[in-house]
Amino acid sequence: MSDMVKVGIAAYGITPFTKNDQKIESSLLESTKNLFDDNPKIDRNDIDAVLVSTNNNSKYLSPILSEMAGIQPKIAHSIESLCNSGTNSIVSAYSYIASGLADVVLISGAERYDSPGQILDWDNSRGEFKHPIFWASIFTKSYKREYHISDEQLALVSVKNHKHAKNNPNAISNKTYTIEDVMNSKKLTDDLKLLDCSRPCTGSASIILASEETTKKLTDSPVWITGIGQKITSAGFTKNKSLSSMESTKLAGNSALQMAKHNISDIDVVEVHDAFSVCEPMALESLGFVNIGNGTSMIRELYDTNNFKVNPRGGLIGSGHPLGATGIAQTIEITQQLQSIAGKRQVDNAKIGLVHNMSAAATSSTVLVLEK
Amino acid sequence: MSDMVKVGIAAYGITPFTKNDQKIESSLLESTKNLFDDNPKIDRNDIDAVLVSTNNNSKYLSPILSEMAGIQPKIAHSIESLCNSGTNSIVSAYSYIASGLADVVLISGAERYDSPGQILDWDNSRGEFKHPIFWASIFTKSYKREYHISDEQLALVSVKNHKHAKNNPNAISNKTYTIEDVMNSKKLTDDLKLLDCSRPCTGSASIILASEETTKKLTDSPVWITGIGQKITSAGFTKNKSLSSMESTKLAGNSALQMAKHNISDIDVVEVHDAFSVCEPMALESLGFVNIGNGTSMIRELYDTNNFKVNPRGGLIGSGHPLGATGIAQTIEITQQLQSIAGKRQVDNAKIGLVHNMSAAATSSTVLVLEK
Repeated sequence: MSDMVKVGIAAYGITPFTKNDQKIESSLLESTKNLFDDNPKIDRNDIDAVLVSTNNNSKYLSPILSEMAGIQPKIAHSIESLCNSGTNSIVSAYSYIASGLADVVLISGAERYDSPGQILDWDNSRGEFKHPIFWASIFTKSYKREYHISDEQLALVSVKNHKHAKNNPNAISNKTYTIEDVMNSKKLTDDLKLLDCSRPCTGSASIILASEETTKKLTDSPVWITGIGQKITSAGFTKNKSLSSMESTKLAGNSALQMAKHNISDIDVVEVHDAFSVCEPMALESLGFVNIGNGTSMIRELYDTNNFKVNPRGGLIGSGHPLGATGIAQTIEITQQLQSIAGKRQVDNAKIGLVHNMSAAATSSTVLVLEK
Repeated sequence: MSDMVKVGIAAYGITPFTKNDQKIESSLLESTKNLFDDNPKIDRNDIDAVLVSTNNNSKYLSPILSEMAGIQPKIAHSIESLCNSGTNSIVSAYSYIASGLADVVLISGAERYDSPGQILDWDNSRGEFKHPIFWASIFTKSYKREYHISDEQLALVSVKNHKHAKNNPNAISNKTYTIEDVMNSKKLTDDLKLLDCSRPCTGSASIILASEETTKKLTDSPVWITGIGQKITSAGFTKNKSLSSMESTKLAGNSALQMAKHNISDIDVVEVHDAFSVCEPMALESLGFVNIGNGTSMIRELYDTNNFKVNPRGGLIGSGHPLGATGIAQTIEITQQLQSIAGKRQVDNAKIGLVHNMSAAATSSTVLVLEK
């Protein structure tokens, strides 16, 4: 990796996350249009690549979005890797710019509430239990048993993230809940209640990456991608080393921090992939924010001190989880935090942030480090 | 673009192209296994990225292939852009290596005969005519009228490419045809007979790209990607500037040649995207091999002199067209030509080759220049 290459976030746009029936093409266009409306300096003719992040089955979405948005790029295709499609697309965009093949890349992610990415048909080891709540349930049981954690301690993740989402105008949730509300919500499995789960929804998020020189021209508050880490340990979750920690997250996190030349203690604000409540403490532990088994204690302390450091936009549980858009929305949130424009969600003095995204029971993870 | 970065083709594997009912996962694994079997020097632990090129609706195919093949990469996702998914994936792999994010990348493309990429549901301007034969029919009528070309002249494309495919052990076709055979084959539209068309099929092709140093370690006959050009002009074909030439191909070809510092007259062997017979002369003209309107004359001369320069493996018409595998199979063919191991298909003294791939009525094109 050349130390001279710097890739920045030059612009972004997002839609509300909802349960509406919007077509995928329309959703992609809406966040792209919001991006252009908010960033009049960007010339569509300068966009070299358009990457679409989605699990939607529609084909040729990137040229379709390009035509609708008035862009004639050199590079255009869709990228799919379940839940972490968005961050994978951001890394691909980074590589196009760092290689010199592109100077400005638009990444647009979208999903509909009925995404085919929700049912894990390909994992035969799951038998009849192809919905992600089943691995999440196994993770929850394993995590609780191994570290003596209660359902109430995990419920606090949902309480905290719904509280954060209340300050996120694009979140699907506008309600706050108590631990009792979570405990009394519909029981889905022995270990999971409805409010422990993120909700599939319709939504889109778009972001523009550019070379150092161009980023500086396009924005007065550049944010730079200084660390990238990715790891795939398997596809089927039964191959996971452990059911109460995230091996791929640990490896991806270490790589990203090493590239950024930072320690985890340097991170001021973080988006982690809380598809289910248990994922948040597990991710915080696997990233090294806190010792193994102590994730819920960290979450309790943050909640008690009204500290928005972890999942300020409300995470997946509070914001909703439109698969292909999620990683991009996470990256936008950290960017806004570093730009100090996150309003009521703002973490004090945020200079270095981290994005954690994963797919399919953490069989793969992507971690980004962002700096202003 | 740094002049110091060199990305090479270090290995490849392919399956026969057939009409069989093989699952997509099995197909991807078969070409990957063939690649490893033929290249024992490659250590699975050195593979940093696995990119899957396909239009198949299955999700998470790249981690699935990785797990089946015994690879735990950093980067893994699927890439879709209809017919040129394969070449787009090769360019993405190139960018990961040139940026320094990866040193060795496996790209595996596959498709089934019943690929959802065949029906262009998204182009409302097509009305009821969503099958590609309809744009091909319009192209054919327009091309014939504009340049006074006969059906028989176009039929020669199919005759030539079936003849070439007879020397390609992986081709779906094993038969040769006369111009009369093509003319008398089933009439599909006013301007297209069955033998004017490539056939969707089941098949897979895999390739490994690596940095200069690693490529030289892994193979004694390295082939280098020296030129890359890509262009998307639109998604819907009604926005094409002309219906008898390929604007995106012209622009992508010019960019690729410029990057490689070559003229089209330097190219010794070429794979062009002959999804339909008319596409071959149009592509040759748009790439600049011959003046506009003279493509069929060039094809006649090559055929009469038994010169395999254009579509030596039999093109899409002779080899079959498994969408996600096609661009990779084209690239493998040019690699084998430059390695002088193409057997009865070998073009004399081939030093510089070109790959042309496109999607959806040439609304997008990708062009690669390869050199030994």
